[in-house]
Formats: sequence, structure tokens, C-alpha cells
Amino acid sequence: MPSHLNPADQQRLDDLHERLCAQSLRNVGYPCNQAFDYSELFRFLQFSINNVGDPFGGTNYRLNTMEFEREVLADFARFTRAPADEWWGYVTSGGTEGNMYGLYVARELFPEGICYFSEDTHYSVAKVLRLQHTRNIMIKSQPDGQMDYDDLRETLRIHRDVPPIIFANIGSTMKGAVDDLAQIRAILDDLAIANAYIHADAALSGMILPFVDAPQAWNFADGADSVSISGHKMLGAPVPCGVVLARKAHVDRIARSIEYIGALDTTIAGSRSAFAPLMLWHRLRTLGDAGLRGMVQECLERADYAVQQLRAQGIDAWRHPNSVTVVFPKPPQSMMEKWIIAPRKKIGHLIVMPHVTTAIIDEFVTDFAAALNCEPRTANR
Amino acid sequence: MPSHLNPADQQRLDDLHERLCAQSLRNVGYPCNQAFDYSELFRFLQFSINNVGDPFGGTNYRLNTMEFEREVLADFARFTRAPADEWWGYVTSGGTEGNMYGLYVARELFPEGICYFSEDTHYSVAKVLRLQHTRNIMIKSQPDGQMDYDDLRETLRIHRDVPPIIFANIGSTMKGAVDDLAQIRAILDDLAIANAYIHADAALSGMILPFVDAPQAWNFADGADSVSISGHKMLGAPVPCGVVLARKAHVDRIARSIEYIGALDTTIAGSRSAFAPLMLWHRLRTLGDAGLRGMVQECLERADYAVQQLRAQGIDAWRHPNSVTVVFPKPPQSMMEKWIIAPRKKIGHLIVMPHVTTAIIDEFVTDFAAALNCEPRTANR
Repeated sequence: MPSHLNPADQQRLDDLHERLCAQSLRNVGYPCNQAFDYSELFRFLQFSINNVGDPFGGTNYRLNTMEFEREVLADFARFTRAPADEWWGYVTSGGTEGNMYGLYVARELFPEGICYFSEDTHYSVAKVLRLQHTRNIMIKSQPDGQMDYDDLRETLRIHRDVPPIIFANIGSTMKGAVDDLAQIRAILDDLAIANAYIHADAALSGMILPFVDAPQAWNFADGADSVSISGHKMLGAPVPCGVVLARKAHVDRIARSIEYIGALDTTIAGSRSAFAPLMLWHRLRTLGDAGLRGMVQECLERADYAVQQLRAQGIDAWRHPNSVTVVFPKPPQSMMEKWIIAPRKKIGHLIVMPHVTTAIIDEFVTDFAAALNCEPRTANR
Repeated sequence: MPSHLNPADQQRLDDLHERLCAQSLRNVGYPCNQAFDYSELFRFLQFSINNVGDPFGGTNYRLNTMEFEREVLADFARFTRAPADEWWGYVTSGGTEGNMYGLYVARELFPEGICYFSEDTHYSVAKVLRLQHTRNIMIKSQPDGQMDYDDLRETLRIHRDVPPIIFANIGSTMKGAVDDLAQIRAILDDLAIANAYIHADAALSGMILPFVDAPQAWNFADGADSVSISGHKMLGAPVPCGVVLARKAHVDRIARSIEYIGALDTTIAGSRSAFAPLMLWHRLRTLGDAGLRGMVQECLERADYAVQQLRAQGIDAWRHPNSVTVVFPKPPQSMMEKWIIAPRKKIGHLIVMPHVTTAIIDEFVTDFAAALNCEPRTANR
């Protein structure tokens, strides 16, 4: 069998590689860290490895990396302050699967429950809720991107007969806002709502808040029932991946219903990448807690630097505490050619990931200021 | 930041690699081809690439491989005889996502529909149906693993007031059986059921049947509304992946509901691997249609050889036409140490993938015969 590309196809791959080399460091609008090196692991890509099923349950398919997966999960359980021996989880194909899993657990616990999520929530959540046929209500956001707690309280009060499923953004997509679990739990307590579920979508900030001195209330210790964190965001990976963790008591209840329908595992995906756990493991082991803290602190410092530099140019930039997401008015369209930005409505943002150096920030600020001077009316300020 | 593993961790990776080297070719029970070489593509793993969203819709995230993805999908549209310009699809993270997508489209078209699937269907399907809150009825199987068409007919007749969603196995997990779409369509026609949906789970056989002379009725031309095919099975890949295709008219109806809830794309996953489309593209381009046909024909010939060799040892082996799955009574437990087999209830199987050479078959048959002679009572024959 032939095993080589023809020259034209080879050229196309070369062109793609060249384009990615030129563009990858210009990605400043999406929280995808471009600074990692997994080349030590490439040798594992010669096998069809697969972590099918429950990482704690074992599998007949021995070409797996579940031993490494369990260690990754134990680290994340520590980062999220999961109750000792009372958590379960698995490595997902990304944030959507993690959120889908949390919302699935919640819906199984409370089949008639209503899910509440803020208008700053990522669009994929509404898609998952529709897929799962879960009743849901969108809650207003505050201008800074946090859930409007007054609106949450009033809406919960009207529906006190139905268990609430709160979908909390731990680092919202556009503004990096954290929905404060302490305030949410206080509202639930105040309304004497005993049956409630909180899922924390900590896609980005789940790898930031464990490494800062004064984190917002966001994790299991603060009342979360499940937490989803992306692997390809702050940690960095060539393909989407992540972890989802949930309180074991909840998962055990699901496991019984799963057993009833004859399914043999409690993950959503079935066949799962065995390479993703290796990458996460490699990243966690090479960096260590001190390395992770250092990486996060440097990003936060550069985010602060970016706010200052943008403001020095008269651009109204700001960020939340413990957030690497620097928010500003939507940049002129001309900026979109050179920079990979993710504007929405009237705002844009610079997400200071490990690959976004001060040199890149300086270049971005210079370009932004120049573009504003060229076409001031398109800046929507 | 440190970038190297400590010696103990390095040793663990080396041990894993050694173990996988020793075991991978002993995988004869799972349809995961171990014979591929994507090393030309490893250079793309230095970037955080991502095919977020609709591959035909474009994305602001320019570090994507959607151009390659669309070409892969066009090849699969050809393999599945999708109606020209009337199909849509995307590269998935594996068979479960593809099935979930097909069943989601079906449920959106027929919210009150009942899904019918045979008892030989993979357990993940019941899980997806539960997740999506879709009503469902399990249909009996024939002894050879095909859906029992009489039971299907009688069950449909009782529920003629509700649109049926037929989940067809195109190569069942254990026996490689193909649920005949011609017979299913004939039953629907006979019962004058106009509103029906057929999803074809062609995880394994979707890459076999396009390359045989007399395929069973299985694809869009035979009446499928959506088809899911795995990439890590017959084609081979280090991580689970696949494609799902659906009739465009159905997807367009979903797109409207997705737009209504403010979601920007019609895939399930959101962030998607941009590396998986590259692998599939590389595989399709290096093999070409002739290479694919050759690979499939060789597997079918060796499957026939395996049946003969097993029978020569008095083992009651058989296979379906166009199937690489050789079925036999469950092997003795002692076989499970050396070989990666996936027995279920009283049967086992040898799935003749490209890496399963005649030498491996000979060794397997010899071991099987020897094990039977040692402990004949455990063979469940």
C-alpha cells in the first residue's frame, strides 16, 4: 500500500504548517495556550490507545492510560478541593462534554429541575440543555459579566417548588467573570431551598484560581456539585480536552440508572482519548504545583501590564481580580486581519495566556492605538 | 519553568511504551486498527489548533484545519452515497458523538418519536437515548445478530401513531451483523408510515461496505437519514475519532432551533480536534480508493482464512458476508492473559483488522486450540 502523499498534497500540509507558525502567536482572543511541548509523547501515537469507560472501573481494552488518568484526576480533585474519597471524574474531550456531564448528573438527580444560567454563559450550554430536554431560565447578567444575583433570587423565589440546577460561570467567556458560589449558596439557604445542584463551568479559571492567594468562591468546598475544567486552555494542548469531576454520591446514583439500561460505564463518550490524559499528566508533572503557580502569576502580571498599556493609549481596558481576560471596547475591523480576536457585540478582549508575552502585548496595543487613529468611528466606544 | 520529567516519571512512560509495544498486536477483539503512521503530522501538535463550530460555516479561530475536514467529509459522503449537495456533516470525537448527533437530529424532527434498536446494539446507545430523553423500545435480535424484522414490524404496527426513529447497526459490535435498510424501509412502506427516521451506526462496516462488490443495504441511497462512521476502527488512529453525516434538509431544521437559542453552531462538541481531520485526510490521501479497497479486501480474505483455520481445529467459527468479525464460542479464560479479546455472554470474536496478519491468526488459533484441550469445560460450547 502507498504510504506517502503526492507532492501537491505534501505542499498543502507544508503550507498549513507555515500558516500556523505565522498565526499561532497572534491568537490573543481565545484562551488557548500555544506554549507547550509534548514531543516526548509522540511515540505513543503509533498505537490505537483508548481509555474506553470508567477510569476507575477498569476495561478489557488494555491499550489504555487509565493509571495516568487517575493521577491527573487526583491532582484536579486537589485543585478543586473535592471532598477526599468522595469524588469521581474522567478526562473529557473538552469543556462541552464536561458541562454536558455535570448537567446530565443534575438532570438525573432532579428530572423536573430547572437550570438557571446567566446571559453571559457560553452558547453551547443552551445547546446542551436543549439536547437533554432540561427546563431552563436565563438570568440577567451584571455589566461586569457576573450573574445578577438579585434576578437569580427573585426567579428562584417564583419557582421554589422545583429543584434548581445552577450553572455557574467560573471565568465567563467574554469578561472572565466568576459567578460567586458563596452568594449563590446564601440565596439558596435564604430561600430554604434544600434540593439544589450547582455545576461550575471552570473551563479557563479552574486552572487559575487554585494558584492565587485570594480566589473567589468557585470549587467543591464552596458548594459546587460538579466542576468542568479545560485542558487545552491554561495548561495548553494541541487538541481540546479537559476534566470533569463530580461528587461521588451523585455519580453513584447515576451509575444505578446506567446499570439498569445495561450500559457498562458512566462516562458520556464511551471510547475516549488515551493520549489526552498522557498530555495532562506530562504537563502537571513537568510543571509541578510551583511551576503552575508561577505560570499563572506571570499571566496575571502581564494581564495587569496589558490593562495599563491599553489605558495609557486611552483605551478603556479592565479586568476582574484573578482574571487573565482583559476587556475593552471592540477593536476596529482592521485589527482582525493580523490578530485572532473573538469580539462579541460591543466588546473585545485580550486573554493573556502563557504565550502572550509583553512583546506581543506591546505590539497589540500599538496596533490597536494606530487602528483607532485611522478609523475612530468603528471602535464603538 | 522546568520542562522535563523526573527520572521516575520518565521511567513510567518508558514502561508504558514497552507494554504497548508488546500488547498492541495482540488486540484482536476490538476493531482498532494498529497499523498506521501519522508521524508526518506530528509537527502540527505544536499548535493549539481547534475546529470549533460548523466546518462549512467558518470560524474566527483561524488555527483550524476545516479545509481538510471538508475534503474528508466529501470523501465520506461519496462512500455513503449521500445525495449530492444535500448532505452535511462534521468530524466527531468518535462513534458515540456521531450516534448522539444522529439521534439528536431525529429527536428534533420527531420530538415525540420512539427509537427502535435491536438487543445487539452497543450499550452506549441506550445511554444516549436516556441522556436525550428519547422514548425507546428494544427490538429482539435474530441469532445472527441482525434485528428481528418480524418483531420490528409488529412493534411498529402497535405504535403507528408515533413517528419511528430506527437505529440500525451497520456491523454490530459482537457479530458484525448489518441491519438491512431495504427490509426496514419495506416494512415502513408496508405499514404506510411516512414520517420515519433511520440512523445508521456504521462505526466499523461504514469503512468496509463502500469497498466490496455486493454490500448490504446500509447507506443514504438505501434510505438512511444519517450515518456515523468511526475513524479509529478500520482506517486507524491513535485517538478515537469519526465522522457523522446527515441529510442537509434535516440539519437545516435543527439549525433554526439552534439559532433560536442563540447557539452559533450545529455540532455537538463545540471545540473540536483539528488534528483528527488531518489524520483522516492523510489516511484517505495516502491510501486512495484503490488502497482502501485493497486493505478491506485483504482483511476479508484473512477473516475467511481465520474461519477456516478455527473450524479445522473443531471451533465453531463463522462470519457474516462482508464482515471482518469472526464469531466463535467464548474462548477459555486462560486466553485472556495473552490476547486482548472482548467476549460477551457466550461468544467471542476475532476482528481481522489490517494489523491482524495470518501469522497472528495462526498463533491465535494454535493458542485457542491448546487452551480448549487444557480446560474444555470453560469453553461454553
